[in-house]
Amino acid sequence: MVTKWFVGVDLGGTTIKLAFVDPYGDIIFKGEVPTNTTNGGTNITTDIAKWIDQALEHLGVSKDRLHSIGMGAPGFINMETGYIYQAVNIGWKDFHLKDRLEMDTSLPVTIDNDANIAALGEMWRGAGNGAKNLLCVTLGTGVGGGVIVNGSIVHGVNGMAGEIGHITAIPKGGFPCNCGKAGCLETISSATGISRIAKEFVSDFPNSLLANGNINAKMVFEAAEKNDECALKVIDHITYYLGFALANLANSLNPEKIVIGGGVSKAGETLLKPLENHFQLFVLPRVAQSVSIVPATLGNDAGVIGGAWLAKTKNR
Amino acid sequence: MVTKWFVGVDLGGTTIKLAFVDPYGDIIFKGEVPTNTTNGGTNITTDIAKWIDQALEHLGVSKDRLHSIGMGAPGFINMETGYIYQAVNIGWKDFHLKDRLEMDTSLPVTIDNDANIAALGEMWRGAGNGAKNLLCVTLGTGVGGGVIVNGSIVHGVNGMAGEIGHITAIPKGGFPCNCGKAGCLETISSATGISRIAKEFVSDFPNSLLANGNINAKMVFEAAEKNDECALKVIDHITYYLGFALANLANSLNPEKIVIGGGVSKAGETLLKPLENHFQLFVLPRVAQSVSIVPATLGNDAGVIGGAWLAKTKNR
Repeated sequence: MVTKWFVGVDLGGTTIKLAFVDPYGDIIFKGEVPTNTTNGGTNITTDIAKWIDQALEHLGVSKDRLHSIGMGAPGFINMETGYIYQAVNIGWKDFHLKDRLEMDTSLPVTIDNDANIAALGEMWRGAGNGAKNLLCVTLGTGVGGGVIVNGSIVHGVNGMAGEIGHITAIPKGGFPCNCGKAGCLETISSATGISRIAKEFVSDFPNSLLANGNINAKMVFEAAEKNDECALKVIDHITYYLGFALANLANSLNPEKIVIGGGVSKAGETLLKPLENHFQLFVLPRVAQSVSIVPATLGNDAGVIGGAWLAKTKNR
Repeated sequence: MVTKWFVGVDLGGTTIKLAFVDPYGDIIFKGEVPTNTTNGGTNITTDIAKWIDQALEHLGVSKDRLHSIGMGAPGFINMETGYIYQAVNIGWKDFHLKDRLEMDTSLPVTIDNDANIAALGEMWRGAGNGAKNLLCVTLGTGVGGGVIVNGSIVHGVNGMAGEIGHITAIPKGGFPCNCGKAGCLETISSATGISRIAKEFVSDFPNSLLANGNINAKMVFEAAEKNDECALKVIDHITYYLGFALANLANSLNPEKIVIGGGVSKAGETLLKPLENHFQLFVLPRVAQSVSIVPATLGNDAGVIGGAWLAKTKNR
């Protein structure tokens, strides 16, 4: 018997990542196409269908090799129906994503949130390493998250679960967040937050490596590796609040792994070591014993692998 | 066909509550026996077996009417094996609870944490009212919790999930907690915390109703109902931190209900109204839309009804 492949699709604001993935989580073939946001994003499902057909032709494989599609999308989604209420960056509003993609591809489709499928990918083949209770945090322009309990994504009552970035880390006097609140973790531990805080701190450190010109998160971590006092203070600050928020979540959910991904996580130990120290201040001893904070390992492939997992588990 | 009954057992430090519960969650017959902690708690399973036999005799019903037992116990438990690592108040250490109770009763047994079965009871027949995503918080001598996702208790990797009382609410300079950390929610929003904080605050309010003698949590709520300024300040303080902790959890889990139980919850609106106001400060708008904070409704019956639910769902 020939094993079937799953199609993992990870939709972002600029590109769509796609892959054929075998039942063991290995990528057979992958590619990407630009996200066409013209005409309210209505060409996207056709673009996906075309990529699939071209990829099959390129591989010389017939379509019945494909089992189903698992796709991650940004925005507010009804996971059960695959209906998109709104996805601002894509241009979708009240869009029947699942139904349209099924019509265009003639394959069964399951839809979930983009942060969630990345978490599933890390659980299956990445840093999760078999752990079925994990928290995934993505530190990028914003702070995203996925909560996995007993091997399944927690969606909550209307799909909003996992909004770790909007945990209030500074209850009084925090920086205003895009969500309308203030002091959210996203205003502190995202690349944007790190750069803002560094700009604020640097005025007290005229001799810092960061003292001249613009500052981004990468520069802060590079300066910290050279023991720059200002940069170390910034990292201490942002990991303190991240450790606080993650420990509180760990006390409530008792996860086995906390997986840190996104651009900021590339800083490696420069980020993870102070994070671990601050996390320990706030976590219950028995919870601490059984959890480890680890960097994400799949990079850009997390989404397509997680999409394939979704297809594999939901379309049996 | 005669419907079978489930035996719900809720073990506390002073009494064991027991009930026969039908498949629809109605209590057929209930009772309680003192918790015998002598001899390392080894008589407890026999006491349960005896109560069951006597209750059946009293009702004139044969034992094959009983389907199985669901039991909640305090302490550190392996939920899969029903093995108790330690339950200090009971006297158990390395105790095969499930196996012993099965031997004594000849019925299949499922064991879970006491806070968790209370949460299941509220989900099934109490304030949860059909919601399958809920947080339950018990404000008593301590602060306990149960997290339910998709209708199942979240246990985490080693059964420690739901420790809502040990969410750090005051990250710096908080009051020391029994767990070894400081500033835990339990040090603030428990009956013990409320009484401690009131004693602290009252020195600034010599004319307060609380100014003379000892203060307990009940007195604080009674004084607040009479608009006592000090009592209102105490309640504002403790609901601020409770609202903060619960909103952060809600942002991560997107529950439909937050059920507040335990002795302190008897204060009703005097507690819930300021809690709701503070919760709103920290919760994401879309999460806020779909969640309600409600008082527990089953009182002392929550545990036995939840135990029956556990038996019903786990021993099919």
